[in-house]
Amino acid sequence: MLSEIITIGDELLIGQVIDTNSAFIAKQLNKIGISVYQITSVQDDKAHILQALQDAESRVDVIILTGGLGPTKDDITKKTIAEYFNDTLVRDDSVLENIESIWKKYARQTLLQVNKDQALVPSKSKVLMNTLGTAPGMWMEKGEKTFISLPGVPFEMKALITNAVIPELKEKYKCPFILHKTLLVYGLGESTLAARIETWEDALPKHIKLAYLPSLGKMRLRISSKGFDKVKVETEVQQQIEQVLPLIKDEFFGYEDEDGNEEAVIGNRLTKIGKTLAIAESCTGGKLAELFTANAGASKYLKGGVVTYSTQSKIDVLSVEEDLIRAHSVVSAQVAEAMAVNVKALYKADFAVATTGNAGPSKGDSVAEVGTVFIAIANENGVFSYKFNFGNPRARVISKAVNKALELLQKEIFKN
Amino acid sequence: MLSEIITIGDELLIGQVIDTNSAFIAKQLNKIGISVYQITSVQDDKAHILQALQDAESRVDVIILTGGLGPTKDDITKKTIAEYFNDTLVRDDSVLENIESIWKKYARQTLLQVNKDQALVPSKSKVLMNTLGTAPGMWMEKGEKTFISLPGVPFEMKALITNAVIPELKEKYKCPFILHKTLLVYGLGESTLAARIETWEDALPKHIKLAYLPSLGKMRLRISSKGFDKVKVETEVQQQIEQVLPLIKDEFFGYEDEDGNEEAVIGNRLTKIGKTLAIAESCTGGKLAELFTANAGASKYLKGGVVTYSTQSKIDVLSVEEDLIRAHSVVSAQVAEAMAVNVKALYKADFAVATTGNAGPSKGDSVAEVGTVFIAIANENGVFSYKFNFGNPRARVISKAVNKALELLQKEIFKN
Repeated sequence: MLSEIITIGDELLIGQVIDTNSAFIAKQLNKIGISVYQITSVQDDKAHILQALQDAESRVDVIILTGGLGPTKDDITKKTIAEYFNDTLVRDDSVLENIESIWKKYARQTLLQVNKDQALVPSKSKVLMNTLGTAPGMWMEKGEKTFISLPGVPFEMKALITNAVIPELKEKYKCPFILHKTLLVYGLGESTLAARIETWEDALPKHIKLAYLPSLGKMRLRISSKGFDKVKVETEVQQQIEQVLPLIKDEFFGYEDEDGNEEAVIGNRLTKIGKTLAIAESCTGGKLAELFTANAGASKYLKGGVVTYSTQSKIDVLSVEEDLIRAHSVVSAQVAEAMAVNVKALYKADFAVATTGNAGPSKGDSVAEVGTVFIAIANENGVFSYKFNFGNPRARVISKAVNKALELLQKEIFKN
Repeated sequence: MLSEIITIGDELLIGQVIDTNSAFIAKQLNKIGISVYQITSVQDDKAHILQALQDAESRVDVIILTGGLGPTKDDITKKTIAEYFNDTLVRDDSVLENIESIWKKYARQTLLQVNKDQALVPSKSKVLMNTLGTAPGMWMEKGEKTFISLPGVPFEMKALITNAVIPELKEKYKCPFILHKTLLVYGLGESTLAARIETWEDALPKHIKLAYLPSLGKMRLRISSKGFDKVKVETEVQQQIEQVLPLIKDEFFGYEDEDGNEEAVIGNRLTKIGKTLAIAESCTGGKLAELFTANAGASKYLKGGVVTYSTQSKIDVLSVEEDLIRAHSVVSAQVAEAMAVNVKALYKADFAVATTGNAGPSKGDSVAEVGTVFIAIANENGVFSYKFNFGNPRARVISKAVNKALELLQKEIFKN
């Protein structure tokens, strides 16, 4: 069972907007056993959209489109789909009702004809009601093939995929079970890891796929398989994992959760053991706190954090001693550790993590080489820290510091 | 002059990784007058890559590929390209030297044959040296058409695009000048804006394109044109802007900077007027601080911030009075304003912004409806705040709160 995703919009092709929709849709399709063969981004252009539809139809069974369903003149997806299906647009009363009710609730402006026209859908389509916005989702069939058109606004698209598209696809198609297991392997480079597991990799059955996913100081190894017998697929993958683990066990840290979300793993663990966390950030600038608070339920374990970006604020807000900074410089193990200990006390937390470093491009208030970062972890037993050099450029230094802080925190918290 | 981008990797098609490379490349190509016709993501599969190359070659002049250049067995791009060009792989000594020097500097592990093999390139290709990593970029030609293969690691790809690909493309092709001007229009919905400017829009010359880009409480209107006469393109677009501005002027806020980066606009302004900023975040959880610190030079104006996520931390860290919270609830104008005033004092800053709200899904320590957010701004003259309801789900509430806080801050700072 194969699918393709077509995302429509000039903003994608001039690089003004990153296509985050495709990854979300691809993940959801994979979960129900529908593989994605190709993702294609095309312009708001009739001929181009028609060609993309035709190409995709020749290759796969399920085609999901997003974008181009707004009320303005540059939104041409709906008319183009109607043309592709030799169909006409007709008013759908339930969609019109939905538009009017959204307008009553949120809009300060008059409901215009162009807004009402969002209730026009191809006569042969089935409407997927979009309660978060005015552009309806549409489901069309052509023989065994299914075409689904969704709004490009991520929140609206996500709700429609979760609540309508996935359940209906599961009902319509008999899908195989797809399993991905992703192993976190912290300390090994890609090629060293490959050399260690080469014999095992070469002996893998052909239907089990292996991928190496290196990412800023963290290595992931993904093992994938699929089949109609769920138990068989799971057993086979598990057997392979049991064979590979002894080869990497000193560097194997655990499995990545379904959404690749390490902070959720840490948060769930803290919640389970009834402990709390505080965060002091200099070079990571709030990114660590933001990752944790992006997850619902963060208030159960996250006391809060400080972004003490300037040297003076480390003294004023975190009570780091001026003498300590003068003696060791603001980018030092001593300052990182003082930040961790003091933020832990300030927020009355059980664990604290602190970062101080020089992300570049210039050296700031420190003599430390650009790329130097100290990360400290404090807990009830004390505090420790590590020094890293993450090179450059700035954004990579920050990302690596965030990943490394999460790794150290995870290791520490899972010790308990 | 048309191009296409092909991103290669199973991780894209199972939704494990979001394709951020394409938007970056598309933006850089557009800047030098090369339009992107299509973006295609394909699997690590020889037949699929060959087909994608053939399709792209039939449509456009420049084809940029990323991904699949690593040292492991799932990386097949290089071999596939050699096959496409009827070419063989040969060792490039300068690439091997680069690999050995990177290894000496960063790697703790032995240099293996698979690493050395990264120095193999198609014999007809020109190497684009990747000093940040071991996979070289490759430039190939076939008649008038250019094929460029780059590593998928974003930092390595970005450096190669900026330092090698763009300069060489500019030299090889005579490219038209492309101009995009993006107007920020805060208060109008998409359809209301369209109705206001309809007559103007209908009268636009055919080669000037207009796009509506709504995004979580902020509306952008993009006007695009291109041509070989730079002055003429600029004059024409400017004339159109002068015609449309009177129609939207009460809601027009300014132009989006090239990278769509509002926090850089705020930061540059603060630096210019010699003022500083502090941030107190509850529901936005560090996201505001993180946006500012992602830009180099943030230390010039950003004193720092606090993420007072728990109610108790607002009392302990920000000295918000317990009675005030009890009287008005933790999600209230009074608490938002106290947070802004107190964080401004704590960090000795000139401006402060504070957020407190209920992002959901559950109600937390407040009776406020899910989606309620208060945003306060403090400056030398005092403090003010606004109440918003950003609906749901959680991630949208947080994003809207961040956008709105940036908007309010920008308006306030540009008053000075």
